[in-house]
Amino acid sequence: MANIAQYREIFIKYLEEKIVLNEPKNLYEPIVYILQLGGKRLRPVLTLMTAEIFGTTHKKALDAALAVEVFHNFSLVHDDIMDEAPLRRGKTTVHEKWDLNTGILSGDAMLILAYQLFENYEGETFKALAELFSKTAIEVCEGQQYDVDFEVRNDVTIPEYLKMIEYKTAVLVGAAMKMGAIIAKTSAKDAEGIYDFGRYLGLAFQLQDDYLDAYGDPKTFGKQVGGDIIENKKTYLYLKALQNSSETNKEKLMQLFTEKPEDATEKIETVKTIFNEANVPETMKNAISEFTMKAFQVLETLNIKDQEKQSLIAFGKQLMNRTV
Amino acid sequence: MANIAQYREIFIKYLEEKIVLNEPKNLYEPIVYILQLGGKRLRPVLTLMTAEIFGTTHKKALDAALAVEVFHNFSLVHDDIMDEAPLRRGKTTVHEKWDLNTGILSGDAMLILAYQLFENYEGETFKALAELFSKTAIEVCEGQQYDVDFEVRNDVTIPEYLKMIEYKTAVLVGAAMKMGAIIAKTSAKDAEGIYDFGRYLGLAFQLQDDYLDAYGDPKTFGKQVGGDIIENKKTYLYLKALQNSSETNKEKLMQLFTEKPEDATEKIETVKTIFNEANVPETMKNAISEFTMKAFQVLETLNIKDQEKQSLIAFGKQLMNRTV
Repeated sequence: MANIAQYREIFIKYLEEKIVLNEPKNLYEPIVYILQLGGKRLRPVLTLMTAEIFGTTHKKALDAALAVEVFHNFSLVHDDIMDEAPLRRGKTTVHEKWDLNTGILSGDAMLILAYQLFENYEGETFKALAELFSKTAIEVCEGQQYDVDFEVRNDVTIPEYLKMIEYKTAVLVGAAMKMGAIIAKTSAKDAEGIYDFGRYLGLAFQLQDDYLDAYGDPKTFGKQVGGDIIENKKTYLYLKALQNSSETNKEKLMQLFTEKPEDATEKIETVKTIFNEANVPETMKNAISEFTMKAFQVLETLNIKDQEKQSLIAFGKQLMNRTV
Repeated sequence: MANIAQYREIFIKYLEEKIVLNEPKNLYEPIVYILQLGGKRLRPVLTLMTAEIFGTTHKKALDAALAVEVFHNFSLVHDDIMDEAPLRRGKTTVHEKWDLNTGILSGDAMLILAYQLFENYEGETFKALAELFSKTAIEVCEGQQYDVDFEVRNDVTIPEYLKMIEYKTAVLVGAAMKMGAIIAKTSAKDAEGIYDFGRYLGLAFQLQDDYLDAYGDPKTFGKQVGGDIIENKKTYLYLKALQNSSETNKEKLMQLFTEKPEDATEKIETVKTIFNEANVPETMKNAISEFTMKAFQVLETLNIKDQEKQSLIAFGKQLMNRTV
């Protein structure tokens, strides 16, 4: 088995071979652009890794891995339009670099291209992959809709929030891994197990994202610390703080999350003080640990070698200790 | 074999059973809305009809027929955003009734739902349908991109225009019919033949659309006659007129197609006079006949009963003599 960095390298090489400029150029240029912008390539690496864990070569999983990455980037292109985001990975977003219509249409084409990447698999494997992909893709859309809906709702509960991030983020991590298992033709039980492992890890990953956004080290985080607070995003931190704060702090917090001051330094500081007084960082770290532990527990039920369980655990721990 | 009206009725009943309001409501409401707005239901009816022509029951083709209609409506929702269209079938478009983000996200979900509708077919049929669907869907995106590109180009040729409408419109008509053939497990030759029949008919259909837009009877046409002229759309009429006009008329026409007067009555009249002087209506009717004849010629090569060839010819003629 290769290590993460090697899988990433293999994957990027394959992506660069496969995603090339077709006609009409105005449709395919943005696709090549967004797919070569970089990113962690976390999901496709997981597909390759899982295929090998279940006993087949990663080579067989390259098309599925690419489908997952193309889909992920499709969702970024359309989400960036919806969020009116000017930047993605430090570079201009597609709808900003080109225009709205290009963003919509290139995104649509990417969704279709993702399905086409499964066509090299034979009948039953093709069907299993495409079904899993469709189920996951529709959940990602539903998750995005819940996220949009939550923006104007003041009564979002923690379970609702967790369902939203499960759909929007975690199921794709689970599906990326399950695809590796499907290609390796593993048992249904193991395929479901590795899906759950990925899903729990995805939940932990997203909560970690929320946490780092407010508590990340500005030196290593890469993005602006406090971005979610500036945008009044009702993340887990905010919802937990509402739950565990004094009535005064609760009102103060709700008021602050209606404001968008030009200089947000003071707002960020006040909000973080309220978070801290409600013991939110600690609660959140516990929630992240809990989901990570759930992921590790699922591993015990899987019919794979101990050594491979250990690599997956190492990978999970690495994700949870990241600073970026 | 049922007649067109009966197939349409069967199809609409199936659509209403299958396309129901799921959670989150804000994602699924626009989907139910656009799919119940009506329309000719031409494509799904062709899928049902073709399945029976090749010897299976239309019931087996209902899911594929619905997939084609859901995809067609997905493309309308996203195209209406790109065209900033306020109305569709006389009703408010999705992005106008809700908003841009809803239009994008509901459209995305429809594209995925279309794929999911193939899941009731077994392995190999599923794969054949999904492959045909993906190929067609990507061509529709490419056709839409060519259409967008042509807006700012002044050197579009007739062959380029024909390729654009082939991709944007005709291939989906061909694919709708080929899906019926795939479900009936007909020979590859017959499946390809019926695809070509549909594709040629689709080309004739779209040229007929261009023609009716300028020359339709205001009493029966339903839409505003001259809409394409008002919008400076470079349709077949315009491109043919440029090709066959005197230098003076050519310059006049090109000038007129840079203008958008508040009252377009005079512009429409002048443009149509130029069209008429270049003998465009006649040339166009010939082109429509030519594609219809090509479609009918393909029929001769098919391994189906004469009676069924006759119904397909009757259907083709009906389409070509429509006034709406």
